[in-house]
Amino acid sequence: MFRLIHRDKKTGARAGRLYTRHGIVDTPAFMPVATKAGVKTLSSEEVLETKAQAIIANALLLYLKPGVEAVEEAGGLHGFMHWPRVIFTDSGGFQVLRKGLFQGVSKRGITFRSPFDESRHLFTPALCAEVQARLGSDVAMALDDCPPYGTGQEAAGKAVARTARWAEEFKASDRGELFAIVQGGVYRDLREESARGLVEIGFDGYGIGGLSIGEPKAVMFRVLEETVPLLPEGKPRYLMGVGSPRELLRAIALGIDIFDSAFPTRNARHNAAYTWSGRLNLSKGRYSRDRQPIERGCRCGACRNYSRAYINHLLKVQEGLGMRLVTIHNLTFFQELMEGAREAILRDGFREFELAVLEGGHGVEPQDGHPQKEEGGPQGEEPDE
Amino acid sequence: MFRLIHRDKKTGARAGRLYTRHGIVDTPAFMPVATKAGVKTLSSEEVLETKAQAIIANALLLYLKPGVEAVEEAGGLHGFMHWPRVIFTDSGGFQVLRKGLFQGVSKRGITFRSPFDESRHLFTPALCAEVQARLGSDVAMALDDCPPYGTGQEAAGKAVARTARWAEEFKASDRGELFAIVQGGVYRDLREESARGLVEIGFDGYGIGGLSIGEPKAVMFRVLEETVPLLPEGKPRYLMGVGSPRELLRAIALGIDIFDSAFPTRNARHNAAYTWSGRLNLSKGRYSRDRQPIERGCRCGACRNYSRAYINHLLKVQEGLGMRLVTIHNLTFFQELMEGAREAILRDGFREFELAVLEGGHGVEPQDGHPQKEEGGPQGEEPDE
Repeated sequence: MFRLIHRDKKTGARAGRLYTRHGIVDTPAFMPVATKAGVKTLSSEEVLETKAQAIIANALLLYLKPGVEAVEEAGGLHGFMHWPRVIFTDSGGFQVLRKGLFQGVSKRGITFRSPFDESRHLFTPALCAEVQARLGSDVAMALDDCPPYGTGQEAAGKAVARTARWAEEFKASDRGELFAIVQGGVYRDLREESARGLVEIGFDGYGIGGLSIGEPKAVMFRVLEETVPLLPEGKPRYLMGVGSPRELLRAIALGIDIFDSAFPTRNARHNAAYTWSGRLNLSKGRYSRDRQPIERGCRCGACRNYSRAYINHLLKVQEGLGMRLVTIHNLTFFQELMEGAREAILRDGFREFELAVLEGGHGVEPQDGHPQKEEGGPQGEEPDE
Repeated sequence: MFRLIHRDKKTGARAGRLYTRHGIVDTPAFMPVATKAGVKTLSSEEVLETKAQAIIANALLLYLKPGVEAVEEAGGLHGFMHWPRVIFTDSGGFQVLRKGLFQGVSKRGITFRSPFDESRHLFTPALCAEVQARLGSDVAMALDDCPPYGTGQEAAGKAVARTARWAEEFKASDRGELFAIVQGGVYRDLREESARGLVEIGFDGYGIGGLSIGEPKAVMFRVLEETVPLLPEGKPRYLMGVGSPRELLRAIALGIDIFDSAFPTRNARHNAAYTWSGRLNLSKGRYSRDRQPIERGCRCGACRNYSRAYINHLLKVQEGLGMRLVTIHNLTFFQELMEGAREAILRDGFREFELAVLEGGHGVEPQDGHPQKEEGGPQGEEPDE
C-alpha cells in the first residue's frame, strides 16, 4: 500500500510512503542491489547501517542458485540473508536476456539455460510469481519482455503486448505487493499502450523498464517525461536501474518515487566515492597523504574510522577492505541524498535542493576515464551484481 | 616487558603477559597477519571483535608502499589503520627472499628491488629499526638472514653469523621492545650458536625463525625442542609463521608464548572453517541446506547472524562476504583456542586441554584436497598476506 504524502509545489517531485509486510519505505527511495542475496562486499548489518530501507534481489538468479527451497526453508530471503527490512525482487527476465542465457521467448514465457548446470528452464509468469512469493519477497515485479535498445517499433510492440499478457497472468497469482513493468522502448505510443494496459489490469506500483540500457540520456528523460503522466497518481513509480545522483534528482523532479541501481556499489569497486562535493577517485596519488575522511561529518563507518590516505593504500594494494569502505560510504551518501530530497519536497523546496546538489559537484557526470556505468541495477546491470 | 605468570606443571607450557606501549598481550597469544596494514578481508573493528590483542604488519612492504612518511604522519600504523591495540612489525627480510625481489645479501644488509617501481633498496639493520620505529611498532623484529629450507650447514652458519651481527646493530638503535630472531636451519649446533649469540646481546624477546618453510613437521618440532631450552625463561618466545590448531598446542607445550600466521585467514579464503569439532569445508554441498551457524554458541559475528547455508551460497557465487564471515569465525576460534590454553595452563591442565582439543577434531591435519598452507605468517607466507 502506498500513501502519497506531499507533492512539491514547483516540480513533479513527490514524497510518499510504501507500506509492506516488512515495514515502511519512505519515498523518494533508493534501493541497493543484492542480486544474489548479498550487496556486493557488504554484510546485511553494514547495509542496515547505511539506513537503506529496502534492497532488491533477483528472483531468477536465486531460483537457479541456491534454489527456492533452500531460501524458503531458511525463512525466505529475510532469514537467509539476515535482512529485517523490505525486500523487492526483480523477476529477472532482463538478466537472462543480457547474460546470453536466453533461448527463446514465447507466449508462455522465457526459456533459458542455467549457467551453472546447462539445464533448460521455462520461466512463466505464474512460476515467476510463485518463486518470488516463496522467496518471501515483499514487493514482486512482474515478468516483462525487455528488448534491447535499438529494437524496432514492430518488435517493441510485440514485447509490449507480451508484457501485458504476462502481467495479467502474474496478477492472477496475487500474493503481496505486485508491481508491473512498463515497456515500449523509445516509442511514445508503445509506452502509452504499455502503461494503459498495465494500469487497466491494476497493480500496486509501476516499474519503468527498458531504460538506462544504452540509450542516450536525453532519450531516457524524454521517455520518462512521456511515461510518468500515464501512471496513476496514487501508486508508486519505480525507475529501474538508475543511476547517478544527478539522474536520480532529475527523475525525482519528474515524479519518480523509487530507484535501484548498482551505480554506487559498482563505482565504489572502481575507486569512485560520491560526496556532496562530487565524485572522488580515491585511487589517485593526491589522496595518498590525505588524512581527512572521505567526507567530513559523514555518519558512515568508513568516514568515522578511516582516512582517504588509508583507503587509497588499501585500493592500491588491492585489499578488499578498500572497496568495502567506499561502498559503505557511497550507499550512505545515496541514502542521505534521498533523505535530503524528501525533506526538500516536504517544504516545497525540491528545485533549490536539486540545484544546490548540482552546484556542489554533481552538475556534470565526470569523465575522468573511470567506468561509471549508469546502466546499473536490475534493468541495466551485469548479472554479476 | 614480559612477566612469566605460571608454568604448567606437566608440560613446558607457560602463561605470561607482555606489556607494551599499546597495552597488554596475554600469552599464549596468536596474532593475525596484517602484512600490508590490513588483515585480509577484515576491518580493524572486526579484528578487534575477534579479541585479538595484537597483530603483525610487515615493515619492509610498508616501507615500499605507502612509504614510511605516509604512515608516520597518520600517527603511525595505529592511526593509519585505526587499530588501538598492540602492533608487532616483522622486519620483512624474509618476504624479500621469497618474493624473488632479492638481489643480494652482504655484511651491510639485504639489497632488493621494489616490485612497484623497480627501484633498488638496501635494507640495513639500522634502517630496518628506524622504519619500524617510525611506523610506530610496539614490538620490532630484528633484520635476520633466513636461508631457505635445504640450505647446507656452511651457508646456514654464515647466515647465523650475519643475523647475529645485524642483531647487534639493530639493538644499538634501541627504541621500544626489540625481538631478535634465532636462525640456524635444521642444525642443532647452529641453532645453539644463534640463540647464544642473540641472548648474549640481550633482547626483550626471541623469535624462532626459519621454521615452517617447507621442512617436515617432525623436523620443525625437533628443532623447537632443541631451541626453546636455549632461550631465557623470563623472555617471550615467538614462533614465527605457525600454524594449525594442533601445531599451536604442541608448540605451546614446548614453551612457545607467541605465534603469528596467515593460517586461519588464508584457509578461510579457501572455504575452511575451524571449530572445536575440527575443520569444515563450507563450500561443500552438504552445507547448502544447513541452517546452523558455523559453530553453535560461538560469539563471533558470523555465527550470531548467518547460517552455514547462507555462507555456502556466498562462497559458491563468489560474494566476498562469504570469505569474510569465515575469516571472522576462524580468527575468533584461534583467539578462543589461546584463551582456553591459557586457562588450562593456569590450572595446570594444559595436557588435558590439548588432548581434548585433539580428540574434538584436531587430532590429524585433514587431507581433503584443499590447501592448508601451514607456512603462513611472516616467516612462511606468500608476500601477499
